[in-house]
Amino acid sequence: MTVKAVVFDAYGTLYDIQSVAAITDEAYPGYGEIITQIWRLKQLEYTWLRSLMGRYQDFSVITRDSLVYTLRVLGLKHYSGVFERIMDKYLHLDLYPEARAALEALRDRKLAILSNGSSGMLNALVRNSGLDRVLDATISIDSKKIFKPAPDAYLLIELNLGIAPADVLFVSSNPFDVCGAKAFGLNVAWIERVTPEAMALACVKSDLLPPLTMFKAIRMQMDELGLEPDFRIRTLADLPGLVKSLTS
Amino acid sequence: MTVKAVVFDAYGTLYDIQSVAAITDEAYPGYGEIITQIWRLKQLEYTWLRSLMGRYQDFSVITRDSLVYTLRVLGLKHYSGVFERIMDKYLHLDLYPEARAALEALRDRKLAILSNGSSGMLNALVRNSGLDRVLDATISIDSKKIFKPAPDAYLLIELNLGIAPADVLFVSSNPFDVCGAKAFGLNVAWIERVTPEAMALACVKSDLLPPLTMFKAIRMQMDELGLEPDFRIRTLADLPGLVKSLTS
Repeated sequence: MTVKAVVFDAYGTLYDIQSVAAITDEAYPGYGEIITQIWRLKQLEYTWLRSLMGRYQDFSVITRDSLVYTLRVLGLKHYSGVFERIMDKYLHLDLYPEARAALEALRDRKLAILSNGSSGMLNALVRNSGLDRVLDATISIDSKKIFKPAPDAYLLIELNLGIAPADVLFVSSNPFDVCGAKAFGLNVAWIERVTPEAMALACVKSDLLPPLTMFKAIRMQMDELGLEPDFRIRTLADLPGLVKSLTS
Repeated sequence: MTVKAVVFDAYGTLYDIQSVAAITDEAYPGYGEIITQIWRLKQLEYTWLRSLMGRYQDFSVITRDSLVYTLRVLGLKHYSGVFERIMDKYLHLDLYPEARAALEALRDRKLAILSNGSSGMLNALVRNSGLDRVLDATISIDSKKIFKPAPDAYLLIELNLGIAPADVLFVSSNPFDVCGAKAFGLNVAWIERVTPEAMALACVKSDLLPPLTMFKAIRMQMDELGLEPDFRIRTLADLPGLVKSLTS
């Protein structure tokens, strides 16, 4: 294949959504990680449920609503100053440490983000992290008013970059996103950050499985949807080598 | 309103899906409840993801796939005899203890099930539990090839019973289903089996939140989707009284 463009998912792929945990833990000591995990789970569920109900709201609304849900279900008080501080971190998420160098090494291709995030959230995030200097496009699904893994979301790559799916390598760490991109017809590299072996070991080690291990497992293991990624890598650092091998 | 029909969700509403836990725990000692919870979570996710991807498979396929996923993610061995025994329990789920009497007390209305289950699964379940004698219809979404909470799924009530949404009381314990039915325009009673107070207390009591509490919380607390049930009841036993009060 010719890799004319490399298109990245944002949340969980380039940006570490667990980097909110420091702030949530400061606000609610001991609860930082569990808030992060439930928040993410519900954030995703709400994108799917609203898409199916035909009641689209943009990702910033869904991100707020799922945080409201998370605090409520954990029995934690909602302080508006604290709430806004946590929400603000979503515009300043940490890049995975290897992300910037991987993107720099791929500058001879078109580089873009395709994300569930609203244009406002994504543009702020990309600017705050300095990725606006390496990306050719930051594509939000919000012009289609439907979230991944709906085919219309992935259609935006060709509409924005003018590059056919066969010439695109899509990169995501989110299994549902990998499956959606494959179903649409993109070439897909899955970043498998936690191996099944490591997960199984964590399960065996603990008699009562800790909730965080479980939540992470459920987010990071490949789903059973009859679809498989074309390529599996362990970190973004493996990506330039993969792209090179595909082209030569 | 005139309640001409009372329509029930099946899994989790009339039938206790946690009644598989005894068999899963026998097969995988100590893992019974966690298998049940992850299995359910992924089963629901797969209905939403497949609906959005336009890759419908019926609920029996999804139920198998999500069980395969669950065993894999927990690092548990897949034995085909054991697997089939667990799957078979899905056709013999326990009714909630108060379900039969509640249905009997409502026999002066049309009574039906509207479920994500495939026709084959639902008919077996209804027959095995003897509910075929009280129900006027068992409606599967599989003729529409899209799962709840898509509007097309709820449309099947009027198509099958000939009763307009305004004259139907829909009953579910599943928050996403309550929201989907409300969005469609049905009158909805939510069975709130676990109160927020009980949930918050369980969270406060345990320093490390046990995964089962968390998984149950996430399934059983009302979602933040901008929709609310018309009525809240605590068990099916409260339903005949509610229906009577609405009519008089």
